[in-house]
Amino acid sequence: MSDRYIAFANSNVGRRLVGALGLPAPVRLERWSAGRTRPVAGALLLGGSGQLGEAVLTFAARLSDSAYAAIDGQHGLRRWTAEHGPALKALVFDASGLARFEQLIELRDFFQAALKGLDLCPHVVILGRAPESLKDPIAASVQRSLEGFSRSLGKEIRRGGNVQLLYVGKGAEEQLEGALRFFLSPKSAYVSGQVVRLSACAEQVRDWSRPLAGKRALVTGAARGIGAAIAETLARDGAEVVLLDVPSAKDALDALAARLGGHGLALDICAADAGQALVAALPDGVDILVHNAGITRDKTLAKMSEAFWNSVLDVNLKAPQQLTQALLDAGTLHDNARVVLLASISGIAGNLGQTNYAVSKAGLIGLAQAWAPALGKRGISINAVAPGFIETQMTAAIPLTIREAGRRMNAMGQGGLPQDVAEAVAWLAQPGSGAVSGQVLRVCGQSLLGA
Amino acid sequence: MSDRYIAFANSNVGRRLVGALGLPAPVRLERWSAGRTRPVAGALLLGGSGQLGEAVLTFAARLSDSAYAAIDGQHGLRRWTAEHGPALKALVFDASGLARFEQLIELRDFFQAALKGLDLCPHVVILGRAPESLKDPIAASVQRSLEGFSRSLGKEIRRGGNVQLLYVGKGAEEQLEGALRFFLSPKSAYVSGQVVRLSACAEQVRDWSRPLAGKRALVTGAARGIGAAIAETLARDGAEVVLLDVPSAKDALDALAARLGGHGLALDICAADAGQALVAALPDGVDILVHNAGITRDKTLAKMSEAFWNSVLDVNLKAPQQLTQALLDAGTLHDNARVVLLASISGIAGNLGQTNYAVSKAGLIGLAQAWAPALGKRGISINAVAPGFIETQMTAAIPLTIREAGRRMNAMGQGGLPQDVAEAVAWLAQPGSGAVSGQVLRVCGQSLLGA
Repeated sequence: MSDRYIAFANSNVGRRLVGALGLPAPVRLERWSAGRTRPVAGALLLGGSGQLGEAVLTFAARLSDSAYAAIDGQHGLRRWTAEHGPALKALVFDASGLARFEQLIELRDFFQAALKGLDLCPHVVILGRAPESLKDPIAASVQRSLEGFSRSLGKEIRRGGNVQLLYVGKGAEEQLEGALRFFLSPKSAYVSGQVVRLSACAEQVRDWSRPLAGKRALVTGAARGIGAAIAETLARDGAEVVLLDVPSAKDALDALAARLGGHGLALDICAADAGQALVAALPDGVDILVHNAGITRDKTLAKMSEAFWNSVLDVNLKAPQQLTQALLDAGTLHDNARVVLLASISGIAGNLGQTNYAVSKAGLIGLAQAWAPALGKRGISINAVAPGFIETQMTAAIPLTIREAGRRMNAMGQGGLPQDVAEAVAWLAQPGSGAVSGQVLRVCGQSLLGA
Repeated sequence: MSDRYIAFANSNVGRRLVGALGLPAPVRLERWSAGRTRPVAGALLLGGSGQLGEAVLTFAARLSDSAYAAIDGQHGLRRWTAEHGPALKALVFDASGLARFEQLIELRDFFQAALKGLDLCPHVVILGRAPESLKDPIAASVQRSLEGFSRSLGKEIRRGGNVQLLYVGKGAEEQLEGALRFFLSPKSAYVSGQVVRLSACAEQVRDWSRPLAGKRALVTGAARGIGAAIAETLARDGAEVVLLDVPSAKDALDALAARLGGHGLALDICAADAGQALVAALPDGVDILVHNAGITRDKTLAKMSEAFWNSVLDVNLKAPQQLTQALLDAGTLHDNARVVLLASISGIAGNLGQTNYAVSKAGLIGLAQAWAPALGKRGISINAVAPGFIETQMTAAIPLTIREAGRRMNAMGQGGLPQDVAEAVAWLAQPGSGAVSGQVLRVCGQSLLGA
């Protein structure tokens, strides 16, 4: 379950050996630890000249006093090197004002200078306007071209850094803070190369130290692995957690629930009366619904049994849809609820030996996309989170060479941790994250695999 | 410029050695040859039970008499093996009727049986309805899940086969024939794992042996490589071709133009008066516009000069936009014209050392998406074609190990040929291909790389 190579490559002897042999040298990623309050532990540099800079400055001003926000003045940036200021932990470039091809050079100018002053594990966010929201085809093309830039930069940045592109809709400026607190902090350590659209959202986080305070969350498949990490992270952020798993996992489930001050619910989500049982178990309703339970039954299609096909679709796709519908019908799912479906990059790129799994995960992405407009009328958001290679008991069972390939085939040269997926879910579960709906967020270290 | 390994692996000695050593054994792909008339040289099997079967049967009925169309009767399919019928060259599964999760098992049932009877280089097309066109979230999820299936099957099928998913809009049934003639024939040899949306289109191909008869086409960067192959293929399909390239390539350009019965146009597309010159050179207007001219100037962003950045954006992005605008303004671009922009998978996935190139190619994709609605009012379509690793003089210059990685990192274990890109462009240039607009078609052998 652990990546021994990364520990070795970051040891004193290992570092020298890895360098001498020209082996990959993945950086040990910084993660968020409970009790931390500062999203950015170092300097934040703002560049660009769009309409979103003010929202970024508001965020920067609210950072703890030891954080440092610098503004890219006309001549200030060239002097920005490690010698002249603190190393840069976060870069935000407001590209929302770029509307002509000639202006794109500003990206080169800003980042070429800023790259020189980067700290370890830097977080980069590029802000733009969604191309489909723009009338001028050239402006739309310019904004769309930012995807090519951010994804290339994500593959170049190294040092454990990550790069995202946020398309900020009109009226969504107020939701930037929540997004930046995620994407500029170690909470997004293993998220890179992503494109996220923010729209207006009525709800707001009140207390950033406990953004989920007062919310009740249900997490399926919560006894171990990614599900347990999600439950733990939601509880850390203030949510009251209800942990669901199969009856055979009851002991582990109850132990975790007790530790998190929540309660366990042993239930087969594929049972005919699962919806009813769930409604009965949640008399006071639920605000956060995380469909994490999932199974694999891998076989090539030529050897795929009906039982393998059906069990994967039943657990991974049909159950989440039916349980969500049951909670909606019973009024158990509150207005402004947050629904998160655990998909997979297999559902995006397809995978050999996983027709059943890829169908189920692509179906979840489709469910998020299709359900978002109707649920949005009640303020409910629904999104998919698509993990790449995550270090769990499930991936530990993969044969060594395939496991190594899976681990290294991403921009960070390493697998992610269950916590990385959990942090993404916890962000999407926040009140202000109604700004995001019908979308897919990959947690994959910018895996090379895609469609 | 040639892949010697694939020749070796398909030789008598090589085949045995490759097998004994467990090396990759890429199949020599079948390509279309001039003069051929039958899209499917073998049996076509139709399965599924949606509303699109009739359109497929119409197409099958028009196939040459030696082609064979079989219908998946309730019990007929189980008996479909190589012993009981001709090997299958083409599979079409009509999934447009699938609206519930339980029905997805039909995919397994059909393909598991059909896979046993496959010929070499089989072509698979799955037909569905675009999820965004469906009101029922479950039906939309089911249709979306087909992406996971087709992409997984593409990675499993081997034998040089390919798999596509076509979402057929209401009223687009009449355009299925053109799409099937492309996707079920060797014209799409190197296209796989693609999702294409078809909508209604007023125009139709009249003569399938010369689908571009009566059309005038302009191809930029036409002196060599992919551009030359495009010019050649458009001419083969009946178009009158105007070949554009830089003045320094004038000799090669004129020679090719003479051979194709077209004419050459030596012009710097970045010149201030390029638009004017182009309008003047096309007094009778143009029906097909292929922006193929492109350059690379690779450097990591840290070392990217302003000149490298600007030259790539000028040639690859700005010139296509400005020339198209000039042709539109002058009325040179006819109603129902077909515009094709050559993008790249670097523009989709990003690439290390190619921030400038990826920006330019992502910008072209954005241009196609943004311009499609307005141009559609005049019946004009605009699409991007995104090649993966194609065997050209450009890729022959890549160092061996990187070149080998690029060649093999796709479902077909080999690079494509310029002709593969040209066939995709020629299909999008057809009168009936107005059914496709604002989209990106990858020609990449289902490269593993993506976003």
